[in-house]
Amino acid sequence: MVLELKVPHGDTLETIKPLLPVFLSYVLSFIYLGIYWNNHHHMLHMCKNVTGGILWANSHLLFWLSLIPFSTGWMGENHFSATPMAIYGFTLLMSAIAYWILQQTIIRSQGPDSPLKLAVGKDWKGKLSPALYCIAMIIGFWAEWMGMALYIVAALIWLVPDRRIEKKLVNS
Amino acid sequence: MVLELKVPHGDTLETIKPLLPVFLSYVLSFIYLGIYWNNHHHMLHMCKNVTGGILWANSHLLFWLSLIPFSTGWMGENHFSATPMAIYGFTLLMSAIAYWILQQTIIRSQGPDSPLKLAVGKDWKGKLSPALYCIAMIIGFWAEWMGMALYIVAALIWLVPDRRIEKKLVNS
Amino acid sequence: MVLELKVPHGDTLETIKPLLPVFLSYVLSFIYLGIYWNNHHHMLHMCKNVTGGILWANSHLLFWLSLIPFSTGWMGENHFSATPMAIYGFTLLMSAIAYWILQQTIIRSQGPDSPLKLAVGKDWKGKLSPALYCIAMIIGFWAEWMGMALYIVAALIWLVPDRRIEKKLVNS
Amino acid sequence: MVLELKVPHGDTLETIKPLLPVFLSYVLSFIYLGIYWNNHHHMLHMCKNVTGGILWANSHLLFWLSLIPFSTGWMGENHFSATPMAIYGFTLLMSAIAYWILQQTIIRSQGPDSPLKLAVGKDWKGKLSPALYCIAMIIGFWAEWMGMALYIVAALIWLVPDRRIEKKLVNS
Repeated sequence: MVLELKVPHGDTLETIKPLLPVFLSYVLSFIYLGIYWNNHHHMLHMCKNVTGGILWANSHLLFWLSLIPFSTGWMGENHFSATPMAIYGFTLLMSAIAYWILQQTIIRSQGPDSPLKLAVGKDWKGKLSPALYCIAMIIGFWAEWMGMALYIVAALIWLVPDRRIEKKLVNS
Repeated sequence: MVLELKVPHGDTLETIKPLLPVFLSYVLSFIYLGIYWNNHHHMLHMCKNVTGGILWANSHLLFWLSLIPFSTGWMGENHFSATPMAIYGFTLLMSAIAYWILQQTIIRSQGPDSPLKLAVGKDWKGKLSPALYCIAMIIGFWAEWMGMALYIVAALIWLVPDRRIEKKLVNS
Repeated sequence: MVLELKVPHGDTLETIKPLLPVFLSYVLSFIYLGIYWNNHHHMLHMCKNVTGGILWANSHLLFWLSLIPFSTGWMGENHFSATPMAIYGFTLLMSAIAYWILQQTIIRSQGPDSPLKLAVGKDWKGKLSPALYCIAMIIGFWAEWMGMALYIVAALIWLVPDRRIEKKLVNS
Repeated sequence: MVLELKVPHGDTLETIKPLLPVFLSYVLSFIYLGIYWNNHHHMLHMCKNVTGGILWANSHLLFWLSLIPFSTGWMGENHFSATPMAIYGFTLLMSAIAYWILQQTIIRSQGPDSPLKLAVGKDWKGKLSPALYCIAMIIGFWAEWMGMALYIVAALIWLVPDRRIEKKLVNS
């Protein structure tokens, strides 16, 4: 989960100025990967019995997350132009879907009284963010800054860690 | 176990089109590494006493797995031409053999009533896939798509995780 | 947390001579990352209940630490000229602040009798080193070697691991 | 601990032929890193109380091990010419010394009846291999193949994992 910044030639601030968009996309992706890592940590803590299905759903999630450094770099190097931003949104969308599949696989493995199901509840964040990614991917072709704004908003609504799961963990 | 995709210059879909074969080989190798990771996870769970021999068999497996990103990249960058595909098949073949050696080393360390031996059973997958890799390596020189088809088939027969081991783990 | 050294062309000592400043900055950063890793190890051992806040404070720390290889490389490739050294100091400063935030977050989560709070005590090292980084960043524009000397001093005062925490761990 | 092989341009066996020395040095270093990893695993298993000193001795070992991929690549790209081979030997030598320091630090932390001390015994391997590295570094300037032969011999005498420690672990 490491995003790369290439060392520039030259020792002035001017020489690293072109890296600014790359750096900003790096920050955004670090936040996204942090969100996944933290929620993933909480979710797996509720999962006592690791089945083959869960391992596969987890590998699937890792596949899409592993593409985020690539799409981040492409977006940053092209100063947030529309096509790379749409591809970036696509990797976020697929990661969100893969996370949802992992969540459902764990819930199913826990049987009827799944503690994860109770903890997740209506999961409005999990439903809202894929919608935001889709809108951002399309809207970016009209106005790039609006697409970017939506990606930032979608990150912000997740920044609060899943206190629901945390509470359940403390009580149990 | 990270496979690399280089960020292209240019911001259109055209500029990432040449990456398509690299991406497809990346997907195939991610599935293969996922297969190894998941089955490895299950196998090590059955292994209570880690001997020096097991550590070495494990290092040997990691050696061949660590070459997969290289052979994947070479195959993808050459649009699946025959020689790189044969080298790719060779790294898969050696990984399969190394996995088998690790499995046998653990079975031997567990003594006569090895639970892993019972779980693995006749191990038809472990015997079929090296044969498929050998055929794919040769057949690829006649028809590249047939070689590729065999690599995909060999992945598909492993996609179902080793439920035998899983069952044994649940029962014990 | 891996710092990269590129393999040079040519097989004489002359060809790796230009790598010397890169190597020296690598050594310094390895020491800094070692300091963080070791103190981090001790601190997390005192932390029994991982909350969402702690996970986020930890991700924040990892963000700044993940920039150290970049700023190290930039500083080394420019033979410790002032601007890259100031940026290097900035990543150290932000890492120190992020470490302090993580420490405070854990202390707050442990309630009034926080064992970490007792162990950390007055935390003069934690207060002195950010000040040193700030001075080094500025002073480096006058005399580069003085800036560098301060970064080295700031590392040296941390080289003794946090025996206070260690003692508390042994007693409890 | 990943050693890198760059993907060549061209799809024939001829195009990867120049990679052969790089590959061979990769194999040798993989064996060395495997040796360290395995013996390290056994040694840390005997270490119940992790002090600051042990953490630092461990970081020191990791520093020298982290340079092995670099010296491996330089040696391989120059077809085992004498200077890169001497530098390679130097990183092996420093790694061996760092390993010895870590071992002594753990023994000292375990007090007078240190089980690690008993397990290690006279440690002839730990004394012989630094000597071999020194001889190989010098002899390589006369005959490169003799230097290389010594590096291989020094690896072979370690290939048998430390059964002494293993036995002690089983008995305790």
